[in-house]
Amino acid sequence: MGSFKGHALPGSFFLVAGIWWTGKHSLWHATRRNKNIGSTRLASRASQRRLEIIESSVVLFFSLVGMLLEQFAAGGPRLQLYDFAEKHWEYLMNWQHATMYLFFGLAATVNLIVHTTEVAPLALDRLMLAIAFFNEGFLFFYHLHGRSMLDVHVHQLLLFAIFGEAVVAFLEVFHRGNIILELLRCTLTLLQGSWFWQIGYVLYPPHGPEWDLNDHNNMMFVTMCYSWHLAFAMLVVSVLYCTVSCGVRSRLRRTPPMEMGLLKPRDPESEDEIL
Amino acid sequence: MGSFKGHALPGSFFLVAGIWWTGKHSLWHATRRNKNIGSTRLASRASQRRLEIIESSVVLFFSLVGMLLEQFAAGGPRLQLYDFAEKHWEYLMNWQHATMYLFFGLAATVNLIVHTTEVAPLALDRLMLAIAFFNEGFLFFYHLHGRSMLDVHVHQLLLFAIFGEAVVAFLEVFHRGNIILELLRCTLTLLQGSWFWQIGYVLYPPHGPEWDLNDHNNMMFVTMCYSWHLAFAMLVVSVLYCTVSCGVRSRLRRTPPMEMGLLKPRDPESEDEIL
Amino acid sequence: MGSFKGHALPGSFFLVAGIWWTGKHSLWHATRRNKNIGSTRLASRASQRRLEIIESSVVLFFSLVGMLLEQFAAGGPRLQLYDFAEKHWEYLMNWQHATMYLFFGLAATVNLIVHTTEVAPLALDRLMLAIAFFNEGFLFFYHLHGRSMLDVHVHQLLLFAIFGEAVVAFLEVFHRGNIILELLRCTLTLLQGSWFWQIGYVLYPPHGPEWDLNDHNNMMFVTMCYSWHLAFAMLVVSVLYCTVSCGVRSRLRRTPPMEMGLLKPRDPESEDEIL
Amino acid sequence: MGSFKGHALPGSFFLVAGIWWTGKHSLWHATRRNKNIGSTRLASRASQRRLEIIESSVVLFFSLVGMLLEQFAAGGPRLQLYDFAEKHWEYLMNWQHATMYLFFGLAATVNLIVHTTEVAPLALDRLMLAIAFFNEGFLFFYHLHGRSMLDVHVHQLLLFAIFGEAVVAFLEVFHRGNIILELLRCTLTLLQGSWFWQIGYVLYPPHGPEWDLNDHNNMMFVTMCYSWHLAFAMLVVSVLYCTVSCGVRSRLRRTPPMEMGLLKPRDPESEDEIL
Repeated sequence: MGSFKGHALPGSFFLVAGIWWTGKHSLWHATRRNKNIGSTRLASRASQRRLEIIESSVVLFFSLVGMLLEQFAAGGPRLQLYDFAEKHWEYLMNWQHATMYLFFGLAATVNLIVHTTEVAPLALDRLMLAIAFFNEGFLFFYHLHGRSMLDVHVHQLLLFAIFGEAVVAFLEVFHRGNIILELLRCTLTLLQGSWFWQIGYVLYPPHGPEWDLNDHNNMMFVTMCYSWHLAFAMLVVSVLYCTVSCGVRSRLRRTPPMEMGLLKPRDPESEDEIL
Repeated sequence: MGSFKGHALPGSFFLVAGIWWTGKHSLWHATRRNKNIGSTRLASRASQRRLEIIESSVVLFFSLVGMLLEQFAAGGPRLQLYDFAEKHWEYLMNWQHATMYLFFGLAATVNLIVHTTEVAPLALDRLMLAIAFFNEGFLFFYHLHGRSMLDVHVHQLLLFAIFGEAVVAFLEVFHRGNIILELLRCTLTLLQGSWFWQIGYVLYPPHGPEWDLNDHNNMMFVTMCYSWHLAFAMLVVSVLYCTVSCGVRSRLRRTPPMEMGLLKPRDPESEDEIL
Repeated sequence: MGSFKGHALPGSFFLVAGIWWTGKHSLWHATRRNKNIGSTRLASRASQRRLEIIESSVVLFFSLVGMLLEQFAAGGPRLQLYDFAEKHWEYLMNWQHATMYLFFGLAATVNLIVHTTEVAPLALDRLMLAIAFFNEGFLFFYHLHGRSMLDVHVHQLLLFAIFGEAVVAFLEVFHRGNIILELLRCTLTLLQGSWFWQIGYVLYPPHGPEWDLNDHNNMMFVTMCYSWHLAFAMLVVSVLYCTVSCGVRSRLRRTPPMEMGLLKPRDPESEDEIL
Repeated sequence: MGSFKGHALPGSFFLVAGIWWTGKHSLWHATRRNKNIGSTRLASRASQRRLEIIESSVVLFFSLVGMLLEQFAAGGPRLQLYDFAEKHWEYLMNWQHATMYLFFGLAATVNLIVHTTEVAPLALDRLMLAIAFFNEGFLFFYHLHGRSMLDVHVHQLLLFAIFGEAVVAFLEVFHRGNIILELLRCTLTLLQGSWFWQIGYVLYPPHGPEWDLNDHNNMMFVTMCYSWHLAFAMLVVSVLYCTVSCGVRSRLRRTPPMEMGLLKPRDPESEDEIL
């Protein structure tokens, strides 16, 4: 039922999301730390809000496209869930994937509401993210019945990243703006993304021979490979973080904050750590 | 031993409790946020306390009724636990259900004491709620021996909601008044309620054919269905929350707080976040 | 290898410990709450310290006695661990029990050091308590190999209380003086104590017929029985807590704090919530 | 594949690390507590930083040496991962060990960056430590397939120490400078170190007879033995802590802080609890 593309596509999305989040949180963290030398020019509260709205809209758009594709692309269930004639469920995989997209779409919708209106509490965006990841992991967890050993194993390893990310997002409800947690979440997103690609290569190798799905040595290699993906994700996040941090600082040094006096009225930006 | 009604009844109770709690916490949160424009007229500390007392009394009443019905309704054990003649336990199911009600009754009693006297610490109500839910999940957990696959699975899914709710209530001991946790608890209560109904429909379909309890596809559908129930519960909670929030704000805007000066002496209401 | 007495004895110890702790923490909590009306006469910081020292000494004494009895009582290993002649381990059960006592003895020793000198951080007593309970649960956990179903089950239920208590004591490292956690710990201690008695009655009934250790109905009854023990423990703790609270208050009311001025120099007592 | 030396070597490293950390954290804690009597002479912020840099460099050096040895020592894979001729993975054990060293090397690198530059947040060092330990435990966890009972058991016990340490290091991200957590981490490091030695003695006894790896009594003894290692580790940590504490105090008492006035400009040392 799966395919190489079916794993590469979500993998790419998570890779992009991980890089995007790393950049965003690094920039805002650098902004907060250098507030005294006028860094709020680079990321004012209004621009932060605009960024969040754009991000949520994009996620919402792709969730909707994903749901529609799962339903109406060639071989989809076209909203039919049960075949009453032959008494069996139709295309449960497609429905499950659509359900995963649905929860990411809900998280994006709530994010939009949180950042455009005043009605919802701010921390709700992290809770919805945690629930979306938890739901993804939950559906994957009950996905694995009756598959071969290596297939189960690579998906179990994926669950570490997914549930880890759900837990980190839930912790962010209480420790919002903690850069450690934010970078950890970015790392786990990248890990998830690159591991989706790895699953594609292991289960549906696009060229080269098939893997023996019941060889214990393959399983041990794959476990180690997961550690390497984690190291790689940590490397990418730290390089990005350092680049953004240094970029912010050098740019601030080049253009001294002469308009210091003018910044006073924008002071509400100092609220950005408040829940 | 179970029946459709036996699942629909607790389901309805949890649905009502979820909706009630959502309304209550939304109202109080809106009240706290709009304190500066005189919202304490809508939910003063005294009225909050009265509400808690009414809620606890109702829960206590239904727990007692539930215990009495489990014991004395047709086919109940009538307080007899062991049949010494035939050497077997009598009606263990009824006793287990009565035990669950007992713990909710205890939680309600403690709630009453906490909110009518000064003797007990405030956070005790959440701890008792956590223990009541934990006990419910604990008894369900050891309930499932020797049942068919789908029967076990739907009850296991129920345990996610129950134990999740116990954990959230326990976290509220330390983060009292955190609207995120309160809404999460409401969502899980609604999820539990609607899932009880779903279990009734799956195991004892009131009309239509029986489900095949050993079909793996049914299990996968039911898992996905659980996600939908969660999404539905989140939807209900957010609609309720927004309605109450907007209602409070519009009502405050219509009747400006002219009696501002008169509010001063009611100031002790500002203590409602304090443990 | 076990016996009724072998379970009743630790059970009694935990029951006494639970009641003692409930009284102690209730008294101190009442003292802290009524500080403004001079309650520090009832439990000054110096008397608190004296109480802790007495408690630790008693625990240390009984741990030493327990270790000596396990080693040198009739049928004990007398410090011999390995029989080199017949190549097998000697009296592993006795050694395991002595190890459990050792950890409670260590916790008491650290408690003594913490409360007599200034050298160790205050929160260390709770950490050592958590480790002692964790070690107890750890040894019980690997104790159960190859026993009959009900035997394993009653010990597993015991583990809930033991590990729960370890977690609560660990949380107290960070939330010292939180009355909710303290009462929860007392409840779990009482639960552990009464459950030890219950295990004795189930596995080694002193009079009456043997239990069928492989009957599933017995297992279900025992599970429910555990809930009743929990309810009973909660009842005992709340009755004790209320009695102490009311006693403190009524006594304070009878003897008004005329010596208010004299209390000033004793002010360091206000530090008792500080870590 | 394993050997006595292969377990004694990492064991020795962890023992040294545990002792070193205990000394370091005890010294700094004593310094912070006695700040008012001029203890900052003993461990100024600059000297703390220097110590961290030396520690990180040493860890980094040994990680590199370890990786090189695993790869190029006699019987190593020499960077060859897959034997395309015979279609099997080469020396997976060596690669796994090298991966473990890699993560400790990464943690040391980040530690160096954190303590030499200002670019990274301070708490990152604990997060990296947590990830390094988690990764070690993760690789060990999937290491145990198809071994004999006692072999699996002694490694599972090791996992308690490893994952426990990962959790404690993660908690330190939020509670930095909490001496309780620091000493607990030191204890678990020592436990890990001495347990590595024990594993070596059990699985590859250097002299004396082989152990029966399928005897349940051996398993029970080993479990108890683990408790003794924990007690021993706690003893070592507490003796070290007390020695350092008393040493600092007696030395401060001998040399009264006459240069009090001169200390003022070094005041930034007071920041050492800040994240």
